[in-house]
Amino acid sequence: MDGNSLGALPIAARERLEHVVKAEWGKGLIKSWNDAGWIALNERVGAKIAPLVGAHPKEVVLADSTSVNLFKTVATAAVLNAGRKKIISEAGNFPTDLYMMEGLTAFMKGDLELKVTARDDILEALDEDTAVLLLTHVHYVSGAMFDMAAVTKTAHEKGVLVVWDLSHSAGAVTLALSEAGADFAVGCGYKYLNGGPGAPAFIYAAERHHGAMAQPLSGWFGHKCPFDFVDTFEPKDGIARMTTGTTPVLAASALESALSVFDGLDMETVRTKSVALTDLFIALCEKDLGAYGFTVVPCGDDARGSHVSLMHDEGYAIMAALIDHGVIGDFRAPNNLRFGFTPLYMSFVDVWDAVETLHRIMKKKIWDHAKYKERNAVT
Amino acid sequence: MDGNSLGALPIAARERLEHVVKAEWGKGLIKSWNDAGWIALNERVGAKIAPLVGAHPKEVVLADSTSVNLFKTVATAAVLNAGRKKIISEAGNFPTDLYMMEGLTAFMKGDLELKVTARDDILEALDEDTAVLLLTHVHYVSGAMFDMAAVTKTAHEKGVLVVWDLSHSAGAVTLALSEAGADFAVGCGYKYLNGGPGAPAFIYAAERHHGAMAQPLSGWFGHKCPFDFVDTFEPKDGIARMTTGTTPVLAASALESALSVFDGLDMETVRTKSVALTDLFIALCEKDLGAYGFTVVPCGDDARGSHVSLMHDEGYAIMAALIDHGVIGDFRAPNNLRFGFTPLYMSFVDVWDAVETLHRIMKKKIWDHAKYKERNAVT
Repeated sequence: MDGNSLGALPIAARERLEHVVKAEWGKGLIKSWNDAGWIALNERVGAKIAPLVGAHPKEVVLADSTSVNLFKTVATAAVLNAGRKKIISEAGNFPTDLYMMEGLTAFMKGDLELKVTARDDILEALDEDTAVLLLTHVHYVSGAMFDMAAVTKTAHEKGVLVVWDLSHSAGAVTLALSEAGADFAVGCGYKYLNGGPGAPAFIYAAERHHGAMAQPLSGWFGHKCPFDFVDTFEPKDGIARMTTGTTPVLAASALESALSVFDGLDMETVRTKSVALTDLFIALCEKDLGAYGFTVVPCGDDARGSHVSLMHDEGYAIMAALIDHGVIGDFRAPNNLRFGFTPLYMSFVDVWDAVETLHRIMKKKIWDHAKYKERNAVT
Repeated sequence: MDGNSLGALPIAARERLEHVVKAEWGKGLIKSWNDAGWIALNERVGAKIAPLVGAHPKEVVLADSTSVNLFKTVATAAVLNAGRKKIISEAGNFPTDLYMMEGLTAFMKGDLELKVTARDDILEALDEDTAVLLLTHVHYVSGAMFDMAAVTKTAHEKGVLVVWDLSHSAGAVTLALSEAGADFAVGCGYKYLNGGPGAPAFIYAAERHHGAMAQPLSGWFGHKCPFDFVDTFEPKDGIARMTTGTTPVLAASALESALSVFDGLDMETVRTKSVALTDLFIALCEKDLGAYGFTVVPCGDDARGSHVSLMHDEGYAIMAALIDHGVIGDFRAPNNLRFGFTPLYMSFVDVWDAVETLHRIMKKKIWDHAKYKERNAVT
């Protein structure tokens, strides 16, 4: 129940990597850039992610890490909205979103500034000096999910461009970037997309921005003719100008094959199961665990993404005991136990077993043993 | 003779990847961040690259792509040298170095500007308004190699910080970053380091800069306590603050194992063979190919790195024919045929065979067939 930084290993990804390493790298060598299609990987994988996020295939491209892509998209949006100074984001957003904005604004010394606002005050904070609104679609702790279309509409009415971080959404909930009129988005290739540990990330940019968008990390893979080796940068047409350095072929290939598990799947169906899984988990927790001091982190008026966090003062020790008993969740300081529900491969039996194990740990006070109370690094 | 974007496949890298995928990802899952040491990969691989570039193990870290790292190091150096506006680089430098600087300076709108200067005029161009000098240590076409210590000394005398791109140097020539007093450096994990197609890159920063350096791409992997999930960025101590997003575990693991072929090797010995290989190639070319209109791209007064470029008006067709006859070199418009000599796995017989094949192609005018004269994408 914790695929955060990797996802489960798809058989297709394992087999593909073996082929890429032994045949394409080992034997095809440099010729594989053309012969094995490495040169088109960024765009090909982007096009494969597009239907999962409700975008046109030419609006998504694989590139770098989520963090780097946050810098690229927000900087690009800020330049498109030049004259406005503020970047607004949510207090308690996923840390790297805020950290990247700190770096971006510090580097711009006064030309841009970051304003971090409580969730309930975000829409009111948007004003005529706001260039970009950066939001994580599904909150990484509470699971609360913004209404993308409504938020985007309000932002646009105030002339604000919106960048969505889909890291905790893509592959688990229905997304409709185009329909919502979203400007930019980023997301990771791991977690619900199962691309493996530290898989490359993706960028979405609405087609209407392609012509004017100029990003600061203008590397040679975003150049119109990279193999002409000219001194002056000329961006590729379309979404590919958001790429930067040489494609990470091994990781990109693993992700491409991992995505094939979504082939022919309807995201509405995936989402229906996701809701059923989280609802069952919450219902079982309320039935069995009420006496042990757990509280479900609420989503407020928002819908829920595909994970549930429970608060408990002894959260660290409880999660350590749970992991030791085969239920891998995630502890987030100070007191959150987070459980992810990947609709593609989790069963209702898994949910039932998890709550039963947690129940046993609480009833027998297993978590109270010294070994679980000692703090180690938990990722 | 063209390992540019990958390097040959080391057996150790192949075996390691298989283990990482099947055991660490497939079975260990999220626990592998601690149990398999993924969390320390960036620093561990950096420390393994350090002796190859003449740096202290704590001065090198794995991160992102070379392009992204160019942005990070030059921006960091520019901030350290605030008040000065110019970034100077070489005309005809490897394109992504210049492209990244275009993006960086355009984004800074007037606070920083890029000046691209002919090789011979670089040192004279450094003045009291120059913040950073960005140079590729071994030129990607000519192979000409800067005297790192001398250039760094001159730059420092003028108060200029130097960023070296070692992509065409690391693993093939002797490097002494610390001894030369170098400030920052970047380089790719592929080419002579054999990390595989699009392998992650590295950053070097001299220890004396660690305390003050603040880079703009301040992502969560560069945070002092990333798993405390606080809203405010606080950089890690030391070189690790130059990292940004989640470690690309598959690619980083492959590179770590690939680097083991350098274990116990003395770079002076590697360099001696590199020089012997390029010298033999040039001597054979002059002996056998003089009549066919080839010219060796000269290095001027500089030493030569580990590759040789030949100029020929029919370079494209000749390289296509060569590749077809089993000698893989590299064509760079408009008329360069580039041959790389990886001292670790190339033999003198390989050099001999390559020139003999080229000789045969010229003598029999094989390159003049229509199929070789038709232009396709060549990477």
